[in-house]
Amino acid sequence: MKKYLKYDEWCIIEEGFNPANHQASESIFSIGNGKMGQRANFEEKYSGESLQGSYVAGVYYPDKTRVGWWKNGYPEYFAKVLNSPNWIGINVTIDGFELDLYKCKVDNFTRTLNMKEGFLLREFEATLENDKKISVKAKRFVSMADTENGAIRYSITPINFSGKISFTPYIDGDIENEDSNYDEKFWNILDVQAEDGSAYLESQTKKSDFRCGFAMKYIVKLNEKVVKPNAEVIQLNKWVGNQIEIEVKEGETACIEKFAGVTSSLNYATDALKSQAEELASFACHKGFDKLFEDHKQKWSEKWIHSDIKIKGDIAAQQAIRFNIFHLNQTYTGEDERLNVGPKGFTGEKYGGTTYWDTEAYCIPFFLMTSPSQVTRQLLIYRYKHLPRAIENAEKLGFKNGAALYPMVTANGEECHNEWEITFEEIHRNGAIAFAIHNYIRHTGDKKYLEEYGLEVLVGISRFWSQRVTFSEARKKYVMLGVTGPNEYENNINNNWYTNKMATWCLKYTKESIDYVKAENPERYEELKAIMNFNEEETVRWMDIVDNMHFPYNEELKVFMQQDGFMDKEQMMADDLDPAERPINQHWSWDRILRSNFIKQADTLQGMYVLEEQFTEEEIRRNFDFYEPRTVHESSLSPCVHSVLASKIGKIEKAYEMYLRTSRLDLDDYNAEVHEGLHITSMAGTWMAIVEGFGGKRAYDEKLYLNPVIPEQWEEYAFRIRFKGKDLEVRVNENEIEIISHASLPVELFVYDKPVTVEENKSITISR
Amino acid sequence: MKKYLKYDEWCIIEEGFNPANHQASESIFSIGNGKMGQRANFEEKYSGESLQGSYVAGVYYPDKTRVGWWKNGYPEYFAKVLNSPNWIGINVTIDGFELDLYKCKVDNFTRTLNMKEGFLLREFEATLENDKKISVKAKRFVSMADTENGAIRYSITPINFSGKISFTPYIDGDIENEDSNYDEKFWNILDVQAEDGSAYLESQTKKSDFRCGFAMKYIVKLNEKVVKPNAEVIQLNKWVGNQIEIEVKEGETACIEKFAGVTSSLNYATDALKSQAEELASFACHKGFDKLFEDHKQKWSEKWIHSDIKIKGDIAAQQAIRFNIFHLNQTYTGEDERLNVGPKGFTGEKYGGTTYWDTEAYCIPFFLMTSPSQVTRQLLIYRYKHLPRAIENAEKLGFKNGAALYPMVTANGEECHNEWEITFEEIHRNGAIAFAIHNYIRHTGDKKYLEEYGLEVLVGISRFWSQRVTFSEARKKYVMLGVTGPNEYENNINNNWYTNKMATWCLKYTKESIDYVKAENPERYEELKAIMNFNEEETVRWMDIVDNMHFPYNEELKVFMQQDGFMDKEQMMADDLDPAERPINQHWSWDRILRSNFIKQADTLQGMYVLEEQFTEEEIRRNFDFYEPRTVHESSLSPCVHSVLASKIGKIEKAYEMYLRTSRLDLDDYNAEVHEGLHITSMAGTWMAIVEGFGGKRAYDEKLYLNPVIPEQWEEYAFRIRFKGKDLEVRVNENEIEIISHASLPVELFVYDKPVTVEENKSITISR
Repeated sequence: MKKYLKYDEWCIIEEGFNPANHQASESIFSIGNGKMGQRANFEEKYSGESLQGSYVAGVYYPDKTRVGWWKNGYPEYFAKVLNSPNWIGINVTIDGFELDLYKCKVDNFTRTLNMKEGFLLREFEATLENDKKISVKAKRFVSMADTENGAIRYSITPINFSGKISFTPYIDGDIENEDSNYDEKFWNILDVQAEDGSAYLESQTKKSDFRCGFAMKYIVKLNEKVVKPNAEVIQLNKWVGNQIEIEVKEGETACIEKFAGVTSSLNYATDALKSQAEELASFACHKGFDKLFEDHKQKWSEKWIHSDIKIKGDIAAQQAIRFNIFHLNQTYTGEDERLNVGPKGFTGEKYGGTTYWDTEAYCIPFFLMTSPSQVTRQLLIYRYKHLPRAIENAEKLGFKNGAALYPMVTANGEECHNEWEITFEEIHRNGAIAFAIHNYIRHTGDKKYLEEYGLEVLVGISRFWSQRVTFSEARKKYVMLGVTGPNEYENNINNNWYTNKMATWCLKYTKESIDYVKAENPERYEELKAIMNFNEEETVRWMDIVDNMHFPYNEELKVFMQQDGFMDKEQMMADDLDPAERPINQHWSWDRILRSNFIKQADTLQGMYVLEEQFTEEEIRRNFDFYEPRTVHESSLSPCVHSVLASKIGKIEKAYEMYLRTSRLDLDDYNAEVHEGLHITSMAGTWMAIVEGFGGKRAYDEKLYLNPVIPEQWEEYAFRIRFKGKDLEVRVNENEIEIISHASLPVELFVYDKPVTVEENKSITISR
Repeated sequence: MKKYLKYDEWCIIEEGFNPANHQASESIFSIGNGKMGQRANFEEKYSGESLQGSYVAGVYYPDKTRVGWWKNGYPEYFAKVLNSPNWIGINVTIDGFELDLYKCKVDNFTRTLNMKEGFLLREFEATLENDKKISVKAKRFVSMADTENGAIRYSITPINFSGKISFTPYIDGDIENEDSNYDEKFWNILDVQAEDGSAYLESQTKKSDFRCGFAMKYIVKLNEKVVKPNAEVIQLNKWVGNQIEIEVKEGETACIEKFAGVTSSLNYATDALKSQAEELASFACHKGFDKLFEDHKQKWSEKWIHSDIKIKGDIAAQQAIRFNIFHLNQTYTGEDERLNVGPKGFTGEKYGGTTYWDTEAYCIPFFLMTSPSQVTRQLLIYRYKHLPRAIENAEKLGFKNGAALYPMVTANGEECHNEWEITFEEIHRNGAIAFAIHNYIRHTGDKKYLEEYGLEVLVGISRFWSQRVTFSEARKKYVMLGVTGPNEYENNINNNWYTNKMATWCLKYTKESIDYVKAENPERYEELKAIMNFNEEETVRWMDIVDNMHFPYNEELKVFMQQDGFMDKEQMMADDLDPAERPINQHWSWDRILRSNFIKQADTLQGMYVLEEQFTEEEIRRNFDFYEPRTVHESSLSPCVHSVLASKIGKIEKAYEMYLRTSRLDLDDYNAEVHEGLHITSMAGTWMAIVEGFGGKRAYDEKLYLNPVIPEQWEEYAFRIRFKGKDLEVRVNENEIEIISHASLPVELFVYDKPVTVEENKSITISR
């Protein structure tokens, strides 16, 4: 754990420069706009430890898979998120001495991530080897409004001298990827061109042939007036830039404003990449830093209106939830159905791939409530577009007749993870993807989605489950053999309760959806039947499985069993573990973990969270009391689910403990790994812990429910949600709940299970 | 499957040169002497596909482990068997044109592996690009008598010309290992020195610092008379040699005899490697090729007396069994307790490591019967010496108090395999290692071994089992969770019947052994107690486990269940598999294999083979009938066990089918992989299929039993065995069994369960 950041409601602030924290800060202070993003690398040269990270959404490299022993069915490659050419670079020399914070004396260093307005600011004083002291201020953002533009304002004021300052703004294409399996470089450089005042570099990924164009323009100012020093144009094989030099007097301020235009072959014909990137850079330069920033800020302001959560009386919690919301909004904006929510977003390379089940299980609940329904719909369509690949995935594993197995990790629909116990067996992801369709529809009312896209996905998934189960002659029940549940501390188990539960839920929901589409739009239904080569007879087996699935259950404890044989394990409690042996995944051998009853992340409880309405509060409590003490929460996705359920069953202290664990995971670097990037997808779980946990927000049968509680550490909290296009603000304190409508129609909902109507643009207050 | 070799009783013969078969032949025609060995690479240059292989016993390289995702407890390295500097090389030019069979016209090519005398012979005619035609004869062996010597006699006769022949005998240290994980070279070359008539090269493995010295000397003959042409001495960084040239007339024969002396730091001080290697080469050169060969042949003759199996009426079976026996004898001679029986011996690099459970489960039964007891004893002491490492292995996985887990794969006692489901879970190897002690004692009567070495190993292993089981409160039984049995087509299962069986057997045998040593040698027992920090209280739990272990059993079928839940699987038969989908491990994804009921290799039946006396014939038949149809035999170690049991229960046709499958596995290249090397350890299984299967040899309670049957394809078969130092020959035909004693005392045994005594050096004949 690392606690070096200041508490602040709207900002993340690092005071004083400590190289040991630099890589962590590079992650934490990352900026992005859904289309591109940046780790908080310095613009000027930095010779200390740093993880360079510049990312263009949707661009990946199929890196040859690395395994110890090849097993049939392994993917050929692991799709790696790519560190891309670096467009932020501005080298600086002061009277010929290079500015490098690793080698200078640094004073009054402050790094600020302003989350309200979406920018990164760095201010410091540096004393160089030549004893010249300067004051520097660098502000950077990637625009939420003009999403292919990034801008930097970099100002230097000599403090104790007058002299020459040189700026070398550049684009560097000679890039390494830390996560490369075989230490290969992933980029070819196709074009470099530098002119006075501008430069262009075009790069191409090897194998996958993505192309990205990076154009830069800049203007130089002395005391806020534009000057035009001559530039030395530098053009190398993989590097382009300009070097300019100006005379600056003590106390004067030299400033360079660098504008980048970034294009990719996802969005442009390859022969237009250059002209478009150059146009974008020119456009931004012409518009000017301040106006560009103004438009950007405006977009952030709109995002915050709908997604902010306010917490009074707990600044650490307030800062943390905003940090989580900020990064989610930076990572995914829902404008492009080909993109998704990568586990590290634009903050690191680790894990590879861009899409995990995290999207459906964690991120969709967040986006559903905080963004227009279109945003979630894009995430669903992303999977719809990958359906043919999911069918191919299943075929590779021996499934037939349009059965679809979505990948555990992917960048393009193809599976790219390489551990058999995950790739081949952690099939519950299929359940989350189906459930997301239901979740979308129950929150938006958009049932039309079923006939447009949803049904095809549901049928593919149901066909998979139908083939994946085995009828056990011994039990006269359907069983599901050889799976890994959400709890990855068990591998290749039989009858994971969660997976079996989600499978039968899918089969049932698919059947209902078929009946619905058939009734509502028979013509489209016939069309879909032809497309899917679907025969209604298929559903006979589906319903037989629904009726006769085996669910492990312990009669004595009246608790659902995570899998067959769970009670054969030695029953131990996480609290009794030697703290020196935690996290166990860093101290115990894998077989010991597998044999133990310790649970990495919510599994049976995950199922009770997803399908909560099927269980009584008493059942939830019994299972919570059984599983929570056995859960070590060594996945970032775990505490949030326990937090939501703890709130539900009135264990508010427990819920708060779990909330803290999830919300400041990266800010306080609980697991000593934040330098690799942030846990983007689990950030949505933090939001869930408040809105669904403390706020008790539910949507059953297309009706909205609120059952707020409040941790005693908080004076008040407020969040805003959307439900079927209606926009509500909810404020909760110890005594009352205020619901403020921003909708143009009355909103009906249930508060503490009592029906309530909030009139359009009115508010109501309910005592607690 | 590849059938290009001629049948012959004593030789493997390849006629005609086909480069497509060359790598397979390089494996099949390998020669070795337990201390070093060679693939059948050509002496002269060969530019076609070839896997170079020159091996020095006991030398390995700890190659950095390669895995997709690291798991706690993985070994840091995989010990790789090393391709070592090449001492066989003799480049040849004919009037300036290089001899290279890949580029010449080749006629009358014959490659012969003479198994009786242990040499490799190659004869051919080659027409070079310059149309000069030569006849070549090359004979090579590594001496069984002078085990650090290898010798080559290489003769050339010009057929259609008189001209200049040059020989370049050399030692090459610039070696690649095909099995390198990171394409690194594993050797440093420390010393090179070439003089007229001799050369020396010294190599050092990186990291592990093994050193090997290679000295060569040669003599040149023209028409069998020694000549002394001037040599051009060539000394490069990693290569040393001489080039000599002689004028040869049409019909004359030029011959070079090259003698190598090979030393390793396992046997010599590093500063003696050179002088010793040079002395060895000089010694061999002085002794002369013919005498050297004579001594070598004599040793082979002795080996064959005791290990040969004669089969009349089935030349394919006769050739195959000798091929298997020959390679086993080449691989391990029992002279050095630091060596073991590598899965590929001296025939390839694949699999790495030098010791698997194959040694105890398969090879020891062979060596026990065919070699002096000392040979097996060395293999046991090998494990004894590794006991501290086995305790460390177990500690890494969280076990305590002297619990020992022997490695799945090792070269030095440390585990070096890297799949968690094997390394951490395939723990039944511990059972085989304990059983080998019992097996040794019951065949040799050497009970003293227990107090000398055996008991410490047994106690370490029993401590492991005692900690590895879990008491299931739910079942009120001990269970063994998360294991992989011999059937590796199941991973991380609970209560593998075989593993549970072997575990309780170990606990019981250890207790008996403790009691025995305590009674026989109380003083030594007290000493051992102190060494092991052993408390007799420990055995209370052991016996409780023995009495209360859970063994999966199906009441309805009256069959032992391979593991919990086996009958939940869809019950399919191997014969019903689409032949196009076999072997399933090349066609099915791993999860599909795991979910299926198909068995890779004997598992429950392995247990019934090992502990046969615990079961009635009816029980064996029931289990055989259940498991055999579900077994796909995709491990080379499988058919032999089924063959032995099939003979036992009177299914002679089945036994013969299984015997064929195992005995010609490599000769006929069933699995299209013989080019990588031979399946050395499973060759012992082939021997078992005859002696224990058809011959029905057993040793219970230190008594010898024979229950011979004979496949109808055979007229007669004969084998020779040792039992408690007594040497018997057994000849079986349709009508009778002849037992010929070569012992100096009467031998008592049971034939068809009737007691029989064979007087010293007499024979008896029993009707069948």
